[in-house]
Amino acid sequence: MRSDLDRLMDEYRLDAIVVIGDATPNTFRDYLTGRAKTHGSIFKKRGEQAVIVVSSMEVDEAAKSGLRVMTYHDFDFALLYNQFGDQPARLRRELFLNFLRKLGIRGRVGFYGAAAVNALLPNLLALTESDLEIAPALDEDALALFDRMFETKDAAEIAALQDVARRTCEVVRRAWSFLSNHYASADSIGSPVVDERGEPLTIGAVRRFIQAQEAALGLEDSRGFIFAQGRDAGVPHSVGEDNDVLEVGRAVVFDISPRGASGYYHDMTRTWSLGCAAEDVQAAYDDVMAAFRMVMDALKVGEPTSRYQIMVLDYFEGRGHATQRSQPGTMNGYVHSLGHGIGLNVHEAPTFGEKSKHVLRIGNAFTVEPGLYYPERGYGVRVEDSVYIDESGAVQRLTDFPYDLVVPLRRR
Amino acid sequence: MRSDLDRLMDEYRLDAIVVIGDATPNTFRDYLTGRAKTHGSIFKKRGEQAVIVVSSMEVDEAAKSGLRVMTYHDFDFALLYNQFGDQPARLRRELFLNFLRKLGIRGRVGFYGAAAVNALLPNLLALTESDLEIAPALDEDALALFDRMFETKDAAEIAALQDVARRTCEVVRRAWSFLSNHYASADSIGSPVVDERGEPLTIGAVRRFIQAQEAALGLEDSRGFIFAQGRDAGVPHSVGEDNDVLEVGRAVVFDISPRGASGYYHDMTRTWSLGCAAEDVQAAYDDVMAAFRMVMDALKVGEPTSRYQIMVLDYFEGRGHATQRSQPGTMNGYVHSLGHGIGLNVHEAPTFGEKSKHVLRIGNAFTVEPGLYYPERGYGVRVEDSVYIDESGAVQRLTDFPYDLVVPLRRR
Repeated sequence: MRSDLDRLMDEYRLDAIVVIGDATPNTFRDYLTGRAKTHGSIFKKRGEQAVIVVSSMEVDEAAKSGLRVMTYHDFDFALLYNQFGDQPARLRRELFLNFLRKLGIRGRVGFYGAAAVNALLPNLLALTESDLEIAPALDEDALALFDRMFETKDAAEIAALQDVARRTCEVVRRAWSFLSNHYASADSIGSPVVDERGEPLTIGAVRRFIQAQEAALGLEDSRGFIFAQGRDAGVPHSVGEDNDVLEVGRAVVFDISPRGASGYYHDMTRTWSLGCAAEDVQAAYDDVMAAFRMVMDALKVGEPTSRYQIMVLDYFEGRGHATQRSQPGTMNGYVHSLGHGIGLNVHEAPTFGEKSKHVLRIGNAFTVEPGLYYPERGYGVRVEDSVYIDESGAVQRLTDFPYDLVVPLRRR
Repeated sequence: MRSDLDRLMDEYRLDAIVVIGDATPNTFRDYLTGRAKTHGSIFKKRGEQAVIVVSSMEVDEAAKSGLRVMTYHDFDFALLYNQFGDQPARLRRELFLNFLRKLGIRGRVGFYGAAAVNALLPNLLALTESDLEIAPALDEDALALFDRMFETKDAAEIAALQDVARRTCEVVRRAWSFLSNHYASADSIGSPVVDERGEPLTIGAVRRFIQAQEAALGLEDSRGFIFAQGRDAGVPHSVGEDNDVLEVGRAVVFDISPRGASGYYHDMTRTWSLGCAAEDVQAAYDDVMAAFRMVMDALKVGEPTSRYQIMVLDYFEGRGHATQRSQPGTMNGYVHSLGHGIGLNVHEAPTFGEKSKHVLRIGNAFTVEPGLYYPERGYGVRVEDSVYIDESGAVQRLTDFPYDLVVPLRRR
């Protein structure tokens, strides 16, 4: 968590860190500033207060960060602008080098943040000619400094995660209720789902309904959710086609990961089959739920996260499904890793790959999301909850929503 | 515009370009893919079709880009994962080098995109040891390749800008109407603005109203708008304090820059004084509007953008205001540049600084936003429209909204 920063800088022998920023969204900066609205960069020497350097227009917003605020004018901006105003890249580089020089950033320095590559590159190349030791080179620890902080949440972060979880589950509940107020036009699998006037229900109409609920509940979802049916549901990141009509007995994967006003994300997935479920979908669903429950029951502080990925790989392979381990590159069967940490980033530490070195810790918040994908057979199934590990080491739900596969439809 | 890419690569002697991407929002990638939902990176050799490399989960979404799609598995991902799966940075770097090698990216190469700095740095440092010529070093032209494309809009982009402009102006119209349905609790400047029950109207209440209108009109505004009163309005990027009560005769700066479903932004600002205007605010407003009209009347294809910044500097200085030119670093008077291009980025080329080298061109879309700031006197004033230059060279409005300073209030 955030309070680990100086300790980790010490552990990784970092004399200073730089969080580079521009107008690009930047969760590294957000994490250190409490999401102050600035485009500034942050410079911190070990054991000293961090400094954020911003344009003079942003001083008020930057001050909300609690960091020490300096402006470009503290670094001879006017002088540099006179000299290099017609060479934006040169100007940016000289200003950046002034930041480092005047703030005394020296020794072994870690670089983080997010930025436009073309604006960044001249600055970084200048460093290779300086006497700085660029810590991230291939030092996996130093590179992962922020990941290490992101990996465990403090009480305020858990409260933010709980808040966005509640709102997201309410959106999903309303979506369920919206769907179950529609009608099966006939009993046979593949028949259109229709509204009370007999008009077919499209994915686009469902999407607009869900978007309106997100907005009403104060959730931001600029990345967009997945509401994908049939073959599209069989491709994990396919978002679904708005013109498609929903069909009876066709599985829909609904994966939603909005963020709250706090900036923290929730992430959950349900697979729903409307009116009834096809036998093959039900069988895949039972396998996914068995894997899901197996993992949930086994989660334990101190265990390597890879253990759970391997557990699911073993289980699915034993049930006859292909996996990325048994058939690298396959698009059928179990084709992704089991989960990911969640916080200000929708994907962050810990990771759950087969070779991941993370270990479950108190304060982790993460998803568990086994899935099976058969695009050529026209379906995919995924179930995902987000959870966290409390102070006592117990696993606590963030997602709180039933696991029913079949959404009952009305009959005409 | 986009169709200039190969010509510009030729002009800037670029053998290839790489648009680096990860989960970071990336308008460079959005521009080339039509906002396909992927985290991939793009590789393009001059005169050849661009290739986007994505995880196998994203193939469907990536295919919507129209680019050639390849997956990590086309670059020995499984092999690399076996070898470096426990060293994420090393794995990313080896994979990145495989992309370049197998796609034959050689010679003079420009790097663009947006990404996490710590993930990017090891990859970029590896390039300094390769025989690639990293074009962006300090080549201002090559670095600005995308800026050059962003600088002029094609017909589809202008249509997208017009659409988001209409929606944004409708939000501003509703905000005006909402405010003017409130009451002055007394005539004196500084009296609270109240609702029909006599309850004070806070900035937070106005903000929630405006946010709801944005959502209803399909606008996304995760950056948030400025609705700042009094001293806060006197600091250009201060967003305003939600707990503050709106006051009669106190100037509010309302600067809103949402984006539409297309991803294109609008940007406009109005300064409003509720019920009546104080004399000093009115005087500053008159100066700002005079500068605004002077620029609007003078905009002409072929003229350097710096001409308009200098025109406004001259005018404001002649009227006795400080500027960043007369007093570098000042927070009083005219403290920013006149405008900026607008598109998939809320700030892009052309720029309007005193030393900017841009020239007005057919297809430009940009803001004009003179302002005067006096935080210690408790006010700030800015007026901003977005415009574009049509095929005939005529300046066309995107923003279409009146310039009244005083929002009339009801009287009890």
